[in-house]
Amino acid sequence: MSANDNPDQLVLSSDNLHPANLIPELCASFYRLGWVTGTGGGICIRTGDKVYIAPSGVQKERIQPSHIFVLPYPQPSPHADRVFLRRPALELKESACTPLFWNAFELRDAGSCVHTHSQNAVMATLLWSGDVFRISHQMIKGVRISGTGSALSYLDTLEVPIIENTPNEEDLKDSMAEAMKAHPNAAGVLVRRHGVYVWGKDWEKAKTQTECLDYLFEIGVKMKLAGVPTVLNA
Amino acid sequence: MSANDNPDQLVLSSDNLHPANLIPELCASFYRLGWVTGTGGGICIRTGDKVYIAPSGVQKERIQPSHIFVLPYPQPSPHADRVFLRRPALELKESACTPLFWNAFELRDAGSCVHTHSQNAVMATLLWSGDVFRISHQMIKGVRISGTGSALSYLDTLEVPIIENTPNEEDLKDSMAEAMKAHPNAAGVLVRRHGVYVWGKDWEKAKTQTECLDYLFEIGVKMKLAGVPTVLNA
Amino acid sequence: MSANDNPDQLVLSSDNLHPANLIPELCASFYRLGWVTGTGGGICIRTGDKVYIAPSGVQKERIQPSHIFVLPYPQPSPHADRVFLRRPALELKESACTPLFWNAFELRDAGSCVHTHSQNAVMATLLWSGDVFRISHQMIKGVRISGTGSALSYLDTLEVPIIENTPNEEDLKDSMAEAMKAHPNAAGVLVRRHGVYVWGKDWEKAKTQTECLDYLFEIGVKMKLAGVPTVLNA
Amino acid sequence: MSANDNPDQLVLSSDNLHPANLIPELCASFYRLGWVTGTGGGICIRTGDKVYIAPSGVQKERIQPSHIFVLPYPQPSPHADRVFLRRPALELKESACTPLFWNAFELRDAGSCVHTHSQNAVMATLLWSGDVFRISHQMIKGVRISGTGSALSYLDTLEVPIIENTPNEEDLKDSMAEAMKAHPNAAGVLVRRHGVYVWGKDWEKAKTQTECLDYLFEIGVKMKLAGVPTVLNA
Repeated sequence: MSANDNPDQLVLSSDNLHPANLIPELCASFYRLGWVTGTGGGICIRTGDKVYIAPSGVQKERIQPSHIFVLPYPQPSPHADRVFLRRPALELKESACTPLFWNAFELRDAGSCVHTHSQNAVMATLLWSGDVFRISHQMIKGVRISGTGSALSYLDTLEVPIIENTPNEEDLKDSMAEAMKAHPNAAGVLVRRHGVYVWGKDWEKAKTQTECLDYLFEIGVKMKLAGVPTVLNA
Repeated sequence: MSANDNPDQLVLSSDNLHPANLIPELCASFYRLGWVTGTGGGICIRTGDKVYIAPSGVQKERIQPSHIFVLPYPQPSPHADRVFLRRPALELKESACTPLFWNAFELRDAGSCVHTHSQNAVMATLLWSGDVFRISHQMIKGVRISGTGSALSYLDTLEVPIIENTPNEEDLKDSMAEAMKAHPNAAGVLVRRHGVYVWGKDWEKAKTQTECLDYLFEIGVKMKLAGVPTVLNA
Repeated sequence: MSANDNPDQLVLSSDNLHPANLIPELCASFYRLGWVTGTGGGICIRTGDKVYIAPSGVQKERIQPSHIFVLPYPQPSPHADRVFLRRPALELKESACTPLFWNAFELRDAGSCVHTHSQNAVMATLLWSGDVFRISHQMIKGVRISGTGSALSYLDTLEVPIIENTPNEEDLKDSMAEAMKAHPNAAGVLVRRHGVYVWGKDWEKAKTQTECLDYLFEIGVKMKLAGVPTVLNA
Repeated sequence: MSANDNPDQLVLSSDNLHPANLIPELCASFYRLGWVTGTGGGICIRTGDKVYIAPSGVQKERIQPSHIFVLPYPQPSPHADRVFLRRPALELKESACTPLFWNAFELRDAGSCVHTHSQNAVMATLLWSGDVFRISHQMIKGVRISGTGSALSYLDTLEVPIIENTPNEEDLKDSMAEAMKAHPNAAGVLVRRHGVYVWGKDWEKAKTQTECLDYLFEIGVKMKLAGVPTVLNA
C-alpha cells in the first residue's frame, strides 16, 4: 500500500530522524529554551517534494507524529486553496506560519524553517528601533550567508532585517518576502514585538543557525543595555 | 465497585491524561519553570462535577496521584464545611487556593486554574504600581478574552487586574472575585508581591494561557527596566 | 550481619527515600538549579543518631550512594577526632561543611542542612552591606521561625544574618553559631561572597526552605537593582 | 584484533567513563548550560598517548561515540600534517580547536580541555577592557593554580588573561600560548568576544574548573553592572 492510499503512512516511521519524529522532539527542546511557549512558534521540514508542519495553537512540547500535516511542494497553484497530502485526524488547525515557511523554500531553497517567540529576539527588535539588527565581532561564523550559503566570518557585520508585525501571521508573507529580497544575504527575518524566522538547507542547519542568531540577539541586547557598542566596523 | 465505594478509584488511572496523573506531571514541569518552588502554587482541574486539587505545602515536583484531593462541583452548600469525594490517606492538608480556584469555576465556568509564584508576575506587580498590568503590541493572541472566550488580538491592550495580597490565601477570595467582575475580560488576576491566578476552559488552555501571561509579564518587566513604553495605544 | 559488621550496608537501600539515595538525587537537582556547580555546596541528612554527608570536592551531580559518609550523632567527643560509622572506599575527602552542618543539628535540632553557592545568595550579601538581609511583604510563609518552628507570615520581616567568609570553610563554625544565637528566629545564615546555609526538621523542609530563601534572595536583588524598597514595615 | 587493526575499537566501549562515551554526555550537558549552542565549543580528553576530540560544526548535544576523532599524543611532528589514529566514517571535519587543546597538553600537561562560548565569558571580556579578568573574594578555591596545580584560596585574586579573537580559531594558537606563558598561574584563557578555554589534569577537573570560572565570570559581570568592586585586594 502506498502512502497515497493511506496518508497516515507519511508520518509513521521508526526512524528517529524522520521529519514526523523530529518535529515533536525539536519542538519539545525549543519549549525548554523558551522559544515556543504558549503554543507559539515551531519548525517545519521539507524533504524534496514534501513539507511537514506542526499544527497551530497546540502545546509545542506535546506534539505527536500523528499531529503532523504533510503538504506537497510546490503547491499545485499559489492561488488555489492549499493542498495537503495528509491531515491529522484530530481537529487540528494548520499552522498560520505556512506562507512564511514557504517564503524560505521559494526564495532561499531552504529545507527547514524555524519560528521562535524568543524574548531575546523580541528585545532585539525593541532596542534596535530601525529596520535592521546589526552586530559585529561576535561568534557570527555559525551563521550562513542568506541562510543557505557559505559561513559568515567573525569580521563580518551580521544584518537581520526587522519587519513590522501584523495581527494575522499570514499577513507577514509579503513584507517578509520583501525583506528577504532587499537583504539577499540575510539568514533570518526578525518580526518586531513578535519573534524571528530562520531557515537553513536542512533541519540541522536551520536549528543551529537559530541557536546562533538567538545567541547574538541575547548578547547584543546585553551589550546595548550595558552601553557597549554592538558594531565595531566603520 | 463504584468510586463511591472506594474513593481511591477516583485517582487511579492508567490514562496519562487523567487529572490525577496530569496534576503531578504538570506541577513537576511548573517547578522546572520556577513557578512553584518552595511548595507554593499549583494547578487544579475540573471535569464536569469533579474537581482535582493537589495538597497544600508539599513539594510540587514530587506529588503522586495518591496525594490528590477530589471535591464535588458544585459544593452542596457554600456556607457549610467543604465536602470531599476523596481525601488522601497521608496527613496532607487541602490547598489554601481552593476558594480562589472556585472563583474561576463559578465566575468564568473554567475547567482548570493555575496559580504561580513566578518572579515575572511578582516583578510585574512591583513595577506596575496601580491596580492593572497593561501591555500592548506583543504576542497577546494566545490569551483569551475573560480566559475562556475568543482569542485576543495583537492590537488589543491586555489588562490584568492586580489585587493586594493577604496573609491567608483564602482571604483573597472576595477581592479576586471583585476584580474578576470589575474586569470581565481579564484572563487572570495578579496578586501583588505574591503571584498570579490564570484559568481556562480546560487544563491545556489554562496552562498555555499561563505561559502566555508569564511571557508578557517577563517581557513587560524587561521593557519597563529598559525604558521602553509597554503600551502603544492612545 | 549488622551494619556494624559491614558499614557499606549503611548506604545500600532499595528505598528511594533512604538518605544515601536521596543525597545523590537532591544534589543532582541542586546542580540543575545552579546551587552546587564546581563541586561546591551540598546537603546532609540526619536520621536520629546517624548523619549522612556527601564527600568534599566532587561533582555534586554525579554522586553515588557508595560515596556517602555516615557519622554517629552526637559525636563521642567534640574535642577528639571525628568518628565515622562508614567511609567510602574511594579516596574521597569528608565534607569541609561538617562542622557547619553540626551547628544546625546542635543549635536547632535540625534533621537536614543545605549549603548552596547560589548567585542569588551571593548577590544578596553584596547588595545588603550590613550583617542582615531583610525583606518583607513577599512569599515568606514557606519559611519557618528558626528554621524548625512554625511558619512565618506574609506580614513578617524576614531576617537572615550575614557572616563574613573565611578561606577555610571549617573556620566559619564559630561565627555561624554566634549568628544563630544572636538571631534565634533565623532560618538560615548567609556567608558573604560565598553562599548560604539553611536547615529544617527533615530533608523536605530543609530543601523547601532553601527554595523559599533563594526565591527571596532573587526577588530582593531584583527589587534592589530596580530601586524598589525591600522592606515596607516601619 | 588490536585497535590498530580496527580503529573503530578506539571509540567502542561499554564503560560510561570511556572518553568516547563521556564526550557526548558532557557536550549534551554543556548544551543545556548554554555553553556550546550553535555547534560551537566542546571538550577534548587525553588519556596518556591518545587524544579524543569531538568533530567540528556539529550539534554538540547530538554527538555519538562513533563521531569522535582519536589522535596520537604527542603528534609525530609539529610541522607535518596532523596524524589520526581514528577518523569517523561520516563526512565530519576535525575540530578547529585542536591546536588550542594542544597548548593545554603541551604547556600545562593537561588531561582535558573545555572550550565554551558562554555568554558570561563573553560579557566578562567586554566589561574588562584590558587584557586580564580579575576578581577576588569569591568562591575561587575550586580553581587550581595554572589549572593543574594546587587549589587557589578565597583570599587570592584570580587572574584570567584575555586574548583578542581571530577569524580562524586555529590562529589563536600562538597568542593563547603566549598568554599562558605570561600568566603561568592562569587556569584558563579568555578570548575576547568569543569564549574561554579551561583545562585540568583530567576531564573532571577541567569540567569543574570551567564551572568555577564560569560562575566567577557570571558573578563578576553582575557585580560590575551593579557597581560593586570586583577586586578588594590593594
